[in-house]
Amino acid sequence: MSELKNDRFLRALLKQPVDYTPVWMMRQAGRYLPEYRATRAKAGDFMALCKNPELACEVTLQPLDRFPLDAAILFSDILTIPDAMGLGLSFGVGEGPKFAHPVRSAADVAKLGVPDPEGELKYVMDAVRVIRRELNGRVPLIGFAGSPWTLATYMVEGGSSKEFAVIKAMMFDQPALLHKLLDVVARSVTSYLNAQVAAGAQALMIFDTWGGNLTPRDYKEFSLRYMQSIVAGLTREAEDRKVPVILFTKGGGQWLEAMAETGADALGLDWTTDLGDARRRVGDKVALQGNMDPSVLYASPERIRREVSEILASYGKGSGHVFNLGHGIHQHVEPDRAKAFVEAVHELSRPYHN
Amino acid sequence: MSELKNDRFLRALLKQPVDYTPVWMMRQAGRYLPEYRATRAKAGDFMALCKNPELACEVTLQPLDRFPLDAAILFSDILTIPDAMGLGLSFGVGEGPKFAHPVRSAADVAKLGVPDPEGELKYVMDAVRVIRRELNGRVPLIGFAGSPWTLATYMVEGGSSKEFAVIKAMMFDQPALLHKLLDVVARSVTSYLNAQVAAGAQALMIFDTWGGNLTPRDYKEFSLRYMQSIVAGLTREAEDRKVPVILFTKGGGQWLEAMAETGADALGLDWTTDLGDARRRVGDKVALQGNMDPSVLYASPERIRREVSEILASYGKGSGHVFNLGHGIHQHVEPDRAKAFVEAVHELSRPYHN
Repeated sequence: MSELKNDRFLRALLKQPVDYTPVWMMRQAGRYLPEYRATRAKAGDFMALCKNPELACEVTLQPLDRFPLDAAILFSDILTIPDAMGLGLSFGVGEGPKFAHPVRSAADVAKLGVPDPEGELKYVMDAVRVIRRELNGRVPLIGFAGSPWTLATYMVEGGSSKEFAVIKAMMFDQPALLHKLLDVVARSVTSYLNAQVAAGAQALMIFDTWGGNLTPRDYKEFSLRYMQSIVAGLTREAEDRKVPVILFTKGGGQWLEAMAETGADALGLDWTTDLGDARRRVGDKVALQGNMDPSVLYASPERIRREVSEILASYGKGSGHVFNLGHGIHQHVEPDRAKAFVEAVHELSRPYHN
Repeated sequence: MSELKNDRFLRALLKQPVDYTPVWMMRQAGRYLPEYRATRAKAGDFMALCKNPELACEVTLQPLDRFPLDAAILFSDILTIPDAMGLGLSFGVGEGPKFAHPVRSAADVAKLGVPDPEGELKYVMDAVRVIRRELNGRVPLIGFAGSPWTLATYMVEGGSSKEFAVIKAMMFDQPALLHKLLDVVARSVTSYLNAQVAAGAQALMIFDTWGGNLTPRDYKEFSLRYMQSIVAGLTREAEDRKVPVILFTKGGGQWLEAMAETGADALGLDWTTDLGDARRRVGDKVALQGNMDPSVLYASPERIRREVSEILASYGKGSGHVFNLGHGIHQHVEPDRAKAFVEAVHELSRPYHN
């Protein structure tokens, strides 16, 4: 593997000194970029793009060619695992994901096995390998997966949901069954993430998009516990470097202390928590990633700079902060605004580092 | 006015002793009840139901005839105010609200005036009067309004939104314009709520459905500040009783301390905050209302009882708690489950009161 030319992202996650605050954007390879839309049109549908390693590599690198980002993230989807489990994933035009075979009964759960990352999911590992080769050491590559709770919501509901009626009925009345489902998903995520590291991922992120819809008790029992078991099972070193792990629960701002106890290296924050308060709450246990409201990218470049400046001041001096949005970049943002954002982070963060 | 036979709800909001914990459900008059669906079909569309005081009274009382609830809430919608401002509200079949004339420019804002509660909004005051007469002192009647920020999101976006792109662009780049809009909405809400009290409302609730989508700084500047100015302008006594005010910001669990400083008597909580922790955080400043996950009503009656019992234990002994769901009851809940919930609160809460 070629030598890493910019390791600020990895260093910040481990709270090692950096000269400026590294930055990347969740969903940085996405629909707000015309070149992404062109590649996606070439691929056909969304999953065809995920399953084509060369095209997945192409879209992964597109934002890096536009902006001086400090990390790349594998282009893929959190639903690759349930798809590989045989649930029959499809994306209708203009619609969210749908599973042909949702998981509803003990018999449905019993049928689920841990997919082979170099079998049904080999296309993901191939994408990691191609991207690492093409990145050629420019910046580190982040691998990722959905949290077991988040994946289970799609698997049980059969797609996206607002109220989570079906999975919550299962959680309240058949908790043992849901635990069995979460267990096989957690083992699948662990194996999948470790395979991504073996293929070349240099940091890992677990996306718990729907954990924030739980009570504090249910969050700990049905979401956090499984993320903790994943963290405990991960390869934490590769190519003579630590492989940092980031946990992100959207809407999880009230539970940062508990999240910091999982053994993860860093926590992702959405924009509803003050970054400085979060730093005081978690102390030295973890680094923090976030947390600008993605809607700020609809504002003028001057206003974007001001928001960046306030977030940097809120975090304060020293390493341990990776700048990011608090959620994925919106599809109607002008790419020039994203550029203003990334450049503002680099420029304005230097005084906070020695 | 007839004497109030059950004042537990008002007493609990003022932290006065009660013999059991009072309970009501947000959206208790709603689509989960077959009799509601029948009345709504009779009325025609949703706004026709809101605008017909006799039918609005009918649906307000329906849940009270089924369950021993300790409060009634005016059947209406938070969007009556922008509708009365001339924005042209409609509800498409199976769709959310739409405004024909969204507020986008300084000229649009300049056109807005405070609606006359006994003029364009007289149908709401008439509904309050009819409901008070028909309630005949069974339980107190809650009046309500949306928060200025929440109303402004619909007015600026032109309907429901997921990303709030238009109003947030206004917030970031034209904050003075947004403040002007929020100011006229706040004055309208104050006048509207005071008219509801004059017509017979015995407690008030402000619904800030979308405040939780803001950063802590923006929440204070664009949502909380205007709720505070409303609270300061409200009639706080009527019929020789205090008229308690409840503030509810969905997703506002991180900001309870600031909300408790507004002068409100009580805070509504969604289910993502532990009720006992919330009580410790706000101390004696306010009562608390909430906070069972509405999805628990999909579970068995036994499981519902267990959840009620855990929430009661979390709050602990003494007054100052009004039991409720953490958000509106879902439309697919079986009415018998709601009954099991209400009865469990009454039965299991007695040991927590002397």
